[in-house]
Amino acid sequence: MVSAFKTIGIFGRVKNSGVIETLKMLIAYLRSLNQNIIIDSEIADALEDITLKSVARADFGKHCQLMIVVGGDGSLLHAAHTIVEHQIPVLGINRGRLGFLTDILPTQLNKIKPILEGKYLLEKRFLLTARVQHEGKIIGQSDALNEVALIPDTLPHMNEFEIYIDDQFLCSQDSDGVIIATPTGSTAYALSGGGPILHPQLDAMVMVPMFPHTLTLRPIVIEGNHRITLVISPNNSATPRLSCDSQSIFNTPPGSTITIEKKPERLHLIHPLDYDYYETLRSKLHWGRKLQYTE
Amino acid sequence: MVSAFKTIGIFGRVKNSGVIETLKMLIAYLRSLNQNIIIDSEIADALEDITLKSVARADFGKHCQLMIVVGGDGSLLHAAHTIVEHQIPVLGINRGRLGFLTDILPTQLNKIKPILEGKYLLEKRFLLTARVQHEGKIIGQSDALNEVALIPDTLPHMNEFEIYIDDQFLCSQDSDGVIIATPTGSTAYALSGGGPILHPQLDAMVMVPMFPHTLTLRPIVIEGNHRITLVISPNNSATPRLSCDSQSIFNTPPGSTITIEKKPERLHLIHPLDYDYYETLRSKLHWGRKLQYTE
Amino acid sequence: MVSAFKTIGIFGRVKNSGVIETLKMLIAYLRSLNQNIIIDSEIADALEDITLKSVARADFGKHCQLMIVVGGDGSLLHAAHTIVEHQIPVLGINRGRLGFLTDILPTQLNKIKPILEGKYLLEKRFLLTARVQHEGKIIGQSDALNEVALIPDTLPHMNEFEIYIDDQFLCSQDSDGVIIATPTGSTAYALSGGGPILHPQLDAMVMVPMFPHTLTLRPIVIEGNHRITLVISPNNSATPRLSCDSQSIFNTPPGSTITIEKKPERLHLIHPLDYDYYETLRSKLHWGRKLQYTE
Amino acid sequence: MVSAFKTIGIFGRVKNSGVIETLKMLIAYLRSLNQNIIIDSEIADALEDITLKSVARADFGKHCQLMIVVGGDGSLLHAAHTIVEHQIPVLGINRGRLGFLTDILPTQLNKIKPILEGKYLLEKRFLLTARVQHEGKIIGQSDALNEVALIPDTLPHMNEFEIYIDDQFLCSQDSDGVIIATPTGSTAYALSGGGPILHPQLDAMVMVPMFPHTLTLRPIVIEGNHRITLVISPNNSATPRLSCDSQSIFNTPPGSTITIEKKPERLHLIHPLDYDYYETLRSKLHWGRKLQYTE
Repeated sequence: MVSAFKTIGIFGRVKNSGVIETLKMLIAYLRSLNQNIIIDSEIADALEDITLKSVARADFGKHCQLMIVVGGDGSLLHAAHTIVEHQIPVLGINRGRLGFLTDILPTQLNKIKPILEGKYLLEKRFLLTARVQHEGKIIGQSDALNEVALIPDTLPHMNEFEIYIDDQFLCSQDSDGVIIATPTGSTAYALSGGGPILHPQLDAMVMVPMFPHTLTLRPIVIEGNHRITLVISPNNSATPRLSCDSQSIFNTPPGSTITIEKKPERLHLIHPLDYDYYETLRSKLHWGRKLQYTE
Repeated sequence: MVSAFKTIGIFGRVKNSGVIETLKMLIAYLRSLNQNIIIDSEIADALEDITLKSVARADFGKHCQLMIVVGGDGSLLHAAHTIVEHQIPVLGINRGRLGFLTDILPTQLNKIKPILEGKYLLEKRFLLTARVQHEGKIIGQSDALNEVALIPDTLPHMNEFEIYIDDQFLCSQDSDGVIIATPTGSTAYALSGGGPILHPQLDAMVMVPMFPHTLTLRPIVIEGNHRITLVISPNNSATPRLSCDSQSIFNTPPGSTITIEKKPERLHLIHPLDYDYYETLRSKLHWGRKLQYTE
Repeated sequence: MVSAFKTIGIFGRVKNSGVIETLKMLIAYLRSLNQNIIIDSEIADALEDITLKSVARADFGKHCQLMIVVGGDGSLLHAAHTIVEHQIPVLGINRGRLGFLTDILPTQLNKIKPILEGKYLLEKRFLLTARVQHEGKIIGQSDALNEVALIPDTLPHMNEFEIYIDDQFLCSQDSDGVIIATPTGSTAYALSGGGPILHPQLDAMVMVPMFPHTLTLRPIVIEGNHRITLVISPNNSATPRLSCDSQSIFNTPPGSTITIEKKPERLHLIHPLDYDYYETLRSKLHWGRKLQYTE
Repeated sequence: MVSAFKTIGIFGRVKNSGVIETLKMLIAYLRSLNQNIIIDSEIADALEDITLKSVARADFGKHCQLMIVVGGDGSLLHAAHTIVEHQIPVLGINRGRLGFLTDILPTQLNKIKPILEGKYLLEKRFLLTARVQHEGKIIGQSDALNEVALIPDTLPHMNEFEIYIDDQFLCSQDSDGVIIATPTGSTAYALSGGGPILHPQLDAMVMVPMFPHTLTLRPIVIEGNHRITLVISPNNSATPRLSCDSQSIFNTPPGSTITIEKKPERLHLIHPLDYDYYETLRSKLHWGRKLQYTE
């Protein structure tokens, strides 16, 4: 077999014994296909008796052409943050049950071979970049594949802020905060908060108000090319925070400004050829199957 | 003044005395600008003492270059159905309070002059076309600017149907029905049903389940170029109906198929230059204004 | 065995072949316990080779001391309407999966023996009585175990009506209608419409607005002893309908008045001693089980 | 005039200049009625030129028979915590617009005279008591008139906990937390989170899940006499917090247990005789008024 990917980087959270087991199976499988593999030091430590080239996780992008993540959607989210600048495609193997992002099960490793042979679907998912500014200085910046969320600090009290779209005033809010989700994130935190599902190929974002004082505030879906600005009221009595995928978190003091816009680089997500997004939706959300009737 | 529109067609529901009053004011105003005007026979009857050229409403498209609708969003919706094939732009004058589509108040008729001089915003809104097929025959077809809704016949019981997107199975539902709304309709019936607001320039539709038996069914937003198909279960015990903007309604018997897709022609909506969609949202939904703080 | 119930009435919808099968098993089981049984003519016809005393369904109340319903919650609902005046207790055997009201599975018929021996939980569920009045005359009256619902006639348009609680004005609505549910019905249609779950022993009703034009209208829970009055606007352009458990349906013309209050008689529902309402909730709604952790 | 209340305690948040103005007007008004007045030291400092008996706020209960609160619902909430043990009735004067609890406007001080003459409505509202236990010790305890809320610490991640009602297992949750609200609190934070409105005289609590991972978790209403227990999973990776009316806040470490039950003492709330709860609802939530039609 001639692999479409010279070297494969492997990533997983080794605290979970199930993940280690699957990592071992995956490595054995890839070796049986004579595939070059790199791992990071954390995995190297966890898999003592396996000798593989070890590379700092931040450098994976320079040394591999495909990244395989073992774990849940959270692990893939984490991997996405390290790999997106390098535009290395990512494939997810889900421990447990089907994920939205990780769609190969440990019992289906044989689905990897056709992928290495170049038979796969490549799907590009966009990320958001959020930047917090206060008194003229940038005090926080990060990316988000799922969502940027303005959240309370320690009290479930009302945060007061304004929302602008491309510098045009949309509304002010008294609320716990707001979730700004990508289509990828629309089935994660935003869905719990009452947001709609956005088809992954839709070029759009959704803003979901969190516990708004004004009951008529509703999720609003806008094109992906808009720039959203949140202005924390200078009179706000608390310091809310900004969460990017629950991986980075920043203070957003009274008077600070948060800008959120699409990141130029996209995450390259790899799926087997039989990937069906709707099947994932049905499975994850317990939706109805095809009706059983005789025609 | 040289008008950008040679002839203007005027439309309104004359059963409402307020509408008649505004129609009279509008006609006087347009005459003062030496503007050609046509009306339909219904208005001609209602405005006995005014002599204007009368044309069948269905023929407005051949005789005018601009249509002005006096009334609420419902009247503009009605007008849109008659005019859309001809791509004649429409301007709405709202009796009562600001509407989503009709954004000039009777007290602001002077906003019309700059529009006639060519100073206006032209916004294109897409419509949906729905077609019902049963036993090989088309048994209903209509357009919708706001929404196509599958609704119960007489009982609040569950209708069983399948949903396909571009012939790919999405899910089956046991529910009262489903609303498929355009961005224009996202602030109408779909919003009452828990759907999100879609920005009017977003090329997308939203499907909102109505009273679904499966509680995890949520509004889903997809690109506007998809074709949605609903298949009524052959075992359905009732005959649900299909409503297009609540203006046309069709039976959808067990086993029938409904296809919904974007109509090639768009509605050309005219706004004054100071039109602000967000201001309309804030006003209609009682959202918060800019915060009052001293910086 | 000395049965606590001299004669048992058996009821089921015989159109469903699974129901017939379970009816046969049930009859054989009860005969093995030497229990007197009555059936109605419909079941008698369906079970040709079984000879049992047949009684009109409406007269079951006079001839039996226990009613066993085979079928889903809908069948039990139907039986409840015929039996409630006689205060005969009802036991439900659910074809398929666990129901909210029918909590014995066909594979668990042996759970019936202890019940006949008097070892059971008796739970009383209240019903509502709805009465429609127009121009001084009563034009409709029925009971509801689940809900009374004001629903649209043929268009998803807005119905305009007022709501009073004990003759005190609550609000007016422009909506598709309103659902007034008992605790029993709070997990049925009202839940699909966004209503809360009411604990079955709570003496309360919930009013759930259906697709209200005013987005701040929310489900409201009031004590069970209140009397709710709906007044259909004399200006309403359509004739909405009133559904009682989707079993009876009445026209409610413009100007008509609907009063809804608790029925004095309650449904006597029988459960096995191991009945657990919360387990039913978890099972039906796919809620989380006890956490698996080692302490 | 013989006052029904020998001495009146006055309370307000003096940081707000509008409150001070109304406090002055109120004191002048009460003095004109020869009413005994006590204030706390904070108000005494703010109203320099007015000499009144000053008493520690915590001791108001021993020295007055009526408490008048000037401010919003938040101020009355705060006062309720200090006064509830003494069963002193409370009257609220709302700065700004009508509140749910504070229903006299500064322009309506003359409504106070009939109240002092004993012409008023006395409404009892129940409170909740929450107690946090960890490793055998009580590590937090407080009352809540509105709601007890389990909330995240710093990340919008999922908290894992179990809910019991009277020691019977209800469900486990992966969510941001849960709000347990009284009828009084049902129109506050719980309403923003999608909970129903509970009539103030209903003896019930509502549990509203916050951003639950399981989408079928819904608000559930139970009788007021139940005891709710939350058990934080020993495996929880974070330490959520417990908020009582946003006035007290406690850590709830992994493995801790929170019990929530009705407090024996109730808040005695005083309203003018023309008080109408439904009018407050309509006004605060912008609901529809009586329909305008000619009968």
